[in-house]
Amino acid sequence: MLQITDHLDRGLTFAEGFSAGAIRSGLKTAGDDISLILAEVPSAVAGVFTTNQVKAASVTYSSTVTRGGMAQAIICNAGNANACNGTQGDIDANTMAVAAANAIGIPHDQMIIAQTGIIGHPMPMKIVTDAIVSLPAAMGHGAEIDMQVARAMMTTDLVPKLIGSEFLSDHVSGTFKIGGCCKGSGMIAPNMATMLCFITTDVEISARDLQIALSGAVRTTFNRMTVDGDTSTNDMVIVLANGKSRTKINTPEALVDFTSALEHICLHLAKAVARDGEGATKLVKVNVNGAKSESDADKIARTIAESPLVKTALYGNDPNWGRIMMAAGRANIPFDFNLVDVFLGGIQVFKAGIVVNFDPEEASKYLNQATVELTVELNAGGHNVTFYTCDFSYDYVKINAEYHT
Amino acid sequence: MLQITDHLDRGLTFAEGFSAGAIRSGLKTAGDDISLILAEVPSAVAGVFTTNQVKAASVTYSSTVTRGGMAQAIICNAGNANACNGTQGDIDANTMAVAAANAIGIPHDQMIIAQTGIIGHPMPMKIVTDAIVSLPAAMGHGAEIDMQVARAMMTTDLVPKLIGSEFLSDHVSGTFKIGGCCKGSGMIAPNMATMLCFITTDVEISARDLQIALSGAVRTTFNRMTVDGDTSTNDMVIVLANGKSRTKINTPEALVDFTSALEHICLHLAKAVARDGEGATKLVKVNVNGAKSESDADKIARTIAESPLVKTALYGNDPNWGRIMMAAGRANIPFDFNLVDVFLGGIQVFKAGIVVNFDPEEASKYLNQATVELTVELNAGGHNVTFYTCDFSYDYVKINAEYHT
Repeated sequence: MLQITDHLDRGLTFAEGFSAGAIRSGLKTAGDDISLILAEVPSAVAGVFTTNQVKAASVTYSSTVTRGGMAQAIICNAGNANACNGTQGDIDANTMAVAAANAIGIPHDQMIIAQTGIIGHPMPMKIVTDAIVSLPAAMGHGAEIDMQVARAMMTTDLVPKLIGSEFLSDHVSGTFKIGGCCKGSGMIAPNMATMLCFITTDVEISARDLQIALSGAVRTTFNRMTVDGDTSTNDMVIVLANGKSRTKINTPEALVDFTSALEHICLHLAKAVARDGEGATKLVKVNVNGAKSESDADKIARTIAESPLVKTALYGNDPNWGRIMMAAGRANIPFDFNLVDVFLGGIQVFKAGIVVNFDPEEASKYLNQATVELTVELNAGGHNVTFYTCDFSYDYVKINAEYHT
Repeated sequence: MLQITDHLDRGLTFAEGFSAGAIRSGLKTAGDDISLILAEVPSAVAGVFTTNQVKAASVTYSSTVTRGGMAQAIICNAGNANACNGTQGDIDANTMAVAAANAIGIPHDQMIIAQTGIIGHPMPMKIVTDAIVSLPAAMGHGAEIDMQVARAMMTTDLVPKLIGSEFLSDHVSGTFKIGGCCKGSGMIAPNMATMLCFITTDVEISARDLQIALSGAVRTTFNRMTVDGDTSTNDMVIVLANGKSRTKINTPEALVDFTSALEHICLHLAKAVARDGEGATKLVKVNVNGAKSESDADKIARTIAESPLVKTALYGNDPNWGRIMMAAGRANIPFDFNLVDVFLGGIQVFKAGIVVNFDPEEASKYLNQATVELTVELNAGGHNVTFYTCDFSYDYVKINAEYHT
């Protein structure tokens, strides 16, 4: 039994023993653009990084730190991705990490770096290093800081995405807390995307178990969330566990519960990203049920969730289930069409391979909501998968045609 | 040596021994919507069909006819895809083929059927069979008929797509002609899409060799053309060869030349489809050169050509090569980033993994043209692939949010 208490106004300083701060350097046209998350003590660290062949300097740097299993802080900037900048990009990432570590007085190898923004523009390092000097004075705790840090990470995001939750489990000695914060609204796709997510927790856990828990939580949340199928050069999810609650995750049962807790945080943030997808007007839950394997269900759900034709129909509140079937059919997973049922929310539109005589106006009214659900029942096995996505509007095109240059 | 003379105003009745006609049944809101292509004599037939798991009744029906190797006519309707209509859909496809065969006096098993339009709406068979009776009187030859038939196939297409070409080869005894006609502007993707393409030729060839030639021609043309990555339930490319020119394709050298000739027709039509992509403002040629294998080049080119972020940047005339690299990187093909060059037309924007100091205004001006070219040089091997696509505009969303219901 895992008891959960959510605090939707809290974020990275919700767990015990973490502080954070944000400042403005000028990398973004307005607002804070550099943030720092600091653990009181060296902490266990785990990370999941982009699978894109083209990796930003920060991804290379931070995955090396993460492999060491220990870190104490994360420095993050928005406005410049420092990707495709060659050797100079690697030097700049290193310089920024060292400057941040010096500013707050921790060893250089305890600093994670995360960057997001435009690709292929050299980092204007002077404004970055000049600004970092003022970071220590900006550090603090509490809801206001949590929100400020969440905003500083944003690029094309419209809303900050954060959560703090308290957990009580039968399998651990006491309560523990997890805080999370995330940015991303385009170039979002399974296997990570222009998405940065930081998680702080006060449990006591080994780096190895922390990695197992994080990988498990990401698999069923961020990796089942897509905006446009495009994945970025810079994505990462980082978790720091500082042990300050003295709640130990040191049995298999405790690890299962802690993984569920991390999954709860990641799911909340993944849904927030999909809902804030560039130009999105609604959050779309795509369920594929009754598949022969989880992998089959995953591939079909992903193909539906990424289909531009399905997503534009959803924007138009159009119960065009034919496009859902078309997308399901092109996932390269064999299934018996004559067993398939399709539902829009509770409205069945397709039964055993044939259209049902449903009321299109009622279905259209259902789709005209902030959260909608599509369900494809394959009736071929026992595996279910849920994907999160959004609709595809004029504004997606506008935002992405006009960003940059 | 293959000499080619193109006639851009000609189509399916350009080759000797073919007639065609189009009529209006009311399946579409306006214009002709049923067309018939007829060979004077039973002809060799070959076809390539959608790989979507969900296949329309016409696909099942026509692939069976095609496997027999002989056909004499194609009946086609636009306005209703007759897909996802269960057993009734199969019955209706059969009824329509039989009605058309009866009307023009050929055996039922010599009739190919092709359908396109909305998915999952029962075929209003009475208006179809009533209209088919008037088809024989509509049959004829020449440029006017070719254009009329091309228009009758259209759904969201803005322009008809047709070509007639005359070929002279050292390896055959005389000239031969090929006519082609195609519809499609959305749900277009590699491995076929809501696309119908009919080809007529007067060569004398076995059905087996005709299939080899068609499969070869489609692989490097229609299968390397994408609008939105969505593939449909109804796609097919059908070729009829009636032997009327008495030019025999009966040696390996002749088959190579005939395949090139078919490829010429298919490439012209595939480019026309990409250029007419829903909402498209430009045709985009994506070259991936210097790959270790053709399959590697194909996957990278396809990922770039399907990326919504690349396509919206192209719509905005934005030389955002970072998105091209991002897309190349997510194709799951390993490559050495530090060897990569990127060009927009003749403008190099990326050299050996680092951005080149190019003039963004000049690059943006280059992108503001009816046809643009992106080239990624991997410098890793000798395999090159070209994909055709279009940009992604407000109008893509508008067309697809508002189509239907």
